[in-house]
Amino acid sequence: MPNKNGHLQHISQQFNTELGQLRTDFLKMGGMVQDQVSQAIEALVNQNTDLAEKTRSADKEVDQMERLVDEEAYRVIAKRQPTASDLRLVMSVVKMVADLERIGDEAKKISKFAISLSENDSNVHGPRGLLEARHISNHVSEMVRDALDAFARFDTALALKVMKEDKRVDEEYKTATRTLVTFMMEDPRNISSCLSIMWVFRSLERVGDHACNIAEQVIFMVEGEDVRHTPMAEREKIVGH
Amino acid sequence: MPNKNGHLQHISQQFNTELGQLRTDFLKMGGMVQDQVSQAIEALVNQNTDLAEKTRSADKEVDQMERLVDEEAYRVIAKRQPTASDLRLVMSVVKMVADLERIGDEAKKISKFAISLSENDSNVHGPRGLLEARHISNHVSEMVRDALDAFARFDTALALKVMKEDKRVDEEYKTATRTLVTFMMEDPRNISSCLSIMWVFRSLERVGDHACNIAEQVIFMVEGEDVRHTPMAEREKIVGH
Repeated sequence: MPNKNGHLQHISQQFNTELGQLRTDFLKMGGMVQDQVSQAIEALVNQNTDLAEKTRSADKEVDQMERLVDEEAYRVIAKRQPTASDLRLVMSVVKMVADLERIGDEAKKISKFAISLSENDSNVHGPRGLLEARHISNHVSEMVRDALDAFARFDTALALKVMKEDKRVDEEYKTATRTLVTFMMEDPRNISSCLSIMWVFRSLERVGDHACNIAEQVIFMVEGEDVRHTPMAEREKIVGH
Repeated sequence: MPNKNGHLQHISQQFNTELGQLRTDFLKMGGMVQDQVSQAIEALVNQNTDLAEKTRSADKEVDQMERLVDEEAYRVIAKRQPTASDLRLVMSVVKMVADLERIGDEAKKISKFAISLSENDSNVHGPRGLLEARHISNHVSEMVRDALDAFARFDTALALKVMKEDKRVDEEYKTATRTLVTFMMEDPRNISSCLSIMWVFRSLERVGDHACNIAEQVIFMVEGEDVRHTPMAEREKIVGH
């Protein structure tokens, strides 16, 4: 039978294992939604309806993962009563898991547009804006990857980088949207397919927003400072850059 | 000096006061975003740029409120180490506060479109779809109000009602969008303003989604069951309807 210290050490080891599991499962879910986004865009650009259907149904697994991670987080709080940085870790995961789930939702929406676009080829020039969609998709996928790496490595500088990228994505989004409006005005037969691609742009822009939310939580987790709705200069001061 | 029981009672009274404060502040924030949505639509329909500007800047107060409620929730968890239904209440608030903040964001976006529409009167017929925007807005505002009432009264039947309404809103959204596509095809000069109104529809539809998320959390808080991604029939069984 262990003495009191041995017993406490045992508890603290178990606690660390549970926190580790929470981190691992969160990152696993992160990997799943990253795949979802890249496959959805692949399906769109190559008009691959099979891949689109597969991506669409992958959303169920992501949803299950969200429940699992939330349950783990609640259990850790109820059983271990974490405080300070441990509590911030758990609470950040609870916030971030909702962002991951919504990234999955956006990927699902993109898959749906991929399916409807390949079914409906009424447009004269083939869908416009696919190159732009791929470009923005690469950009926001990088943001999601960096946000997850920032979480895995407690890397606040990387989190800050993610937030800075968001402005560039917003610009790319606006430019791409303007181009599509021009196509729509040139020939009203383009309107329907251009609108679908426009919704795809919007979904991708939202993915970038969610990556930013995750990055904000990483800074909160590491520094204990809530940087949501904070000017960039102040964020830089907090992170020490 | 109070005896041990008196001391515990004192702690538990303070705890109840803190939980009450958390609930009150959450509901206050709910009232703020409800006002934001209705004012944004008012500004849009009446082309009232002053009101639109006011609504847009009200978002800062909502953001501050989000920080406050989150801080309160974290403090309660760290200090009081709640379990069971108390923990579910606090965790639900942490989830729901993010939905309220995003409802505020959508209202802000609608205000921006209201401003750009009244500046840009290039469309031939005046903006189309305003009636539909008001109609969907009334519907989703009702959902937000009901979701907040369901939270305030632990009313799971009302929460269920909110989730059922979402399907109807999605239908209204689709019909309204189709009407606008027709206007765009009829006269390409309508494209720009129709697109703005289409983004407004989308924002409103998102508001409905957030109301649903809040309703799901209410059921989790009261019943301890996670009904996200659960078929409606199962939700009804859980709620006992």
